[in-house]
Amino acid sequence: MSIVVVGSVAFDNVASPSGKAENLLGGAATFFALAASYFTQVRVVGVVGDDFTDEHFEVFEKHKIDTRGIERAKGKTFRWGGHYVDNLNEAKTDFTELNVFEKFEPRIPNEYRDSKFLFLANIHPDLQALVRREMNGVRLTGGDTMNYWIQRTRPELERTLKVMNVLLINDTEVKMLASNETNLLRAARKVLAMGPQALVVKHGEYGATIFFREGSFGIGSHPFRAPALPIEEVKDPTGAGDSFAGGFMGYIASQSELNREVLKRALFYGSVMGSFAVEEFGTAGLQNLTRGEIDARFQLFRELTHLD
Amino acid sequence: MSIVVVGSVAFDNVASPSGKAENLLGGAATFFALAASYFTQVRVVGVVGDDFTDEHFEVFEKHKIDTRGIERAKGKTFRWGGHYVDNLNEAKTDFTELNVFEKFEPRIPNEYRDSKFLFLANIHPDLQALVRREMNGVRLTGGDTMNYWIQRTRPELERTLKVMNVLLINDTEVKMLASNETNLLRAARKVLAMGPQALVVKHGEYGATIFFREGSFGIGSHPFRAPALPIEEVKDPTGAGDSFAGGFMGYIASQSELNREVLKRALFYGSVMGSFAVEEFGTAGLQNLTRGEIDARFQLFRELTHLD
Repeated sequence: MSIVVVGSVAFDNVASPSGKAENLLGGAATFFALAASYFTQVRVVGVVGDDFTDEHFEVFEKHKIDTRGIERAKGKTFRWGGHYVDNLNEAKTDFTELNVFEKFEPRIPNEYRDSKFLFLANIHPDLQALVRREMNGVRLTGGDTMNYWIQRTRPELERTLKVMNVLLINDTEVKMLASNETNLLRAARKVLAMGPQALVVKHGEYGATIFFREGSFGIGSHPFRAPALPIEEVKDPTGAGDSFAGGFMGYIASQSELNREVLKRALFYGSVMGSFAVEEFGTAGLQNLTRGEIDARFQLFRELTHLD
Repeated sequence: MSIVVVGSVAFDNVASPSGKAENLLGGAATFFALAASYFTQVRVVGVVGDDFTDEHFEVFEKHKIDTRGIERAKGKTFRWGGHYVDNLNEAKTDFTELNVFEKFEPRIPNEYRDSKFLFLANIHPDLQALVRREMNGVRLTGGDTMNYWIQRTRPELERTLKVMNVLLINDTEVKMLASNETNLLRAARKVLAMGPQALVVKHGEYGATIFFREGSFGIGSHPFRAPALPIEEVKDPTGAGDSFAGGFMGYIASQSELNREVLKRALFYGSVMGSFAVEEFGTAGLQNLTRGEIDARFQLFRELTHLD
């Protein structure tokens, strides 16, 4: 089943201990869409400027990603520059030029409206809520957010959380969202009480944990954890979280059932896609995979943590 | 089969967000011995002062731990005080009084010499090497170390690493030992080249990873990861690493085979014992367990990360 993603499409400049690269195709919606495209049909809602060429659109088209929801506006595409020093989990921002993204008003093409899965990447919570209302026939909505919105637009974010089924954020964000509760389990419980039926907490190089609201997607409230493979060289962590979300949501959208076992396997697939993304600069690690390579790494992740 | 542990026996004062407690029975050898005692017979080599009473010895005796190698010296027992603020993985030391531990010269009772398993807790690497020489019939030696020895006694530590089969340290230590290599996989490979056949890296609340030297304990060089259970309330992280080591080594010593599957299950048991330790102040979380409770939590850890 197809999935709609709304979020940024961008150009990135990145420097890391492994080197640097400029004008990389990036943005949350881009990483998400490429990662999810190996599992299901993806439809993007976003905005780009007149510096976004056919060559860039071809990257999407090669993966059969629907770009009819990507508006071409007058001006420049969103640009971000950042670098990583020792701690590869933390980007230091060099510049952010919102450009055409500043006035982004997501518009859902009519052709997208039959999609049953929706992902609200990291944008203003009011825009997330607007898209969610437009897509009122969806079966499952996933979403992301960040410190910026937690601190500056908490009431709006709390409203939006009520219409998200699965929230995917990192350790720092979940603790901040839970009013600085430092215990992960208690923080997760607080966030689940705000609306989502499941919460995925991304731990960077240590994988991710999914917490379920009691009775959601099945019985009980035990969390579940997927590991991350220790990787030889993390070249560029940019987009790891969005690629994780793409693998997670894409796998879910490809399944007919929606239960805990599906969500658990989805957590592994998220971890797998995140690991491919960081092995190359920009989206290069996601562009030329096969489903066979993805499933082989899935098995590796399984072996990494399964006892005989 | 029995296991010998050499290391500190201490009294701790601890403060954490959950409260505080004074004069707690502690020390690396104590946590290790209690955790390992649920799997095998444990023999301790250490030193205490005249403030160490029969009541304290009874804690060991209740677990059938052999204390004939604990020397009673004139003076006070090693004392440590510390507190934890938000980051429960990091203790802030308030005071360290080495007392009788300052001149500790480990002496192995003759009755201990038939033990086939040895754990060298965190002491001066020369003392670790001395004990290892004395116990020259052992089948497997595990050991710990810390930043202090890595920075101040690297040549001595590197000599000792050559006679350790398994080194158990945390993320920060492995990176420091590998000359500030920040990539975990590459850091692990460098450390394995220094001597140990296996390296266990403890990740605090994210569990632990075991790396194997190519061809050691079986075929291949894939790492393996055990999760840690998200815990409702971490009351006192002191001794978590030593309890992990006790569960890990104790389980290994209880098995007749010595292969990767045993080491993998040992990693889970290490994680399990660490989780019990942090739920109470001092050693209280390790004192009244049953093997049934331990195996039930082992199953919980398995379910936490195993796909159907």
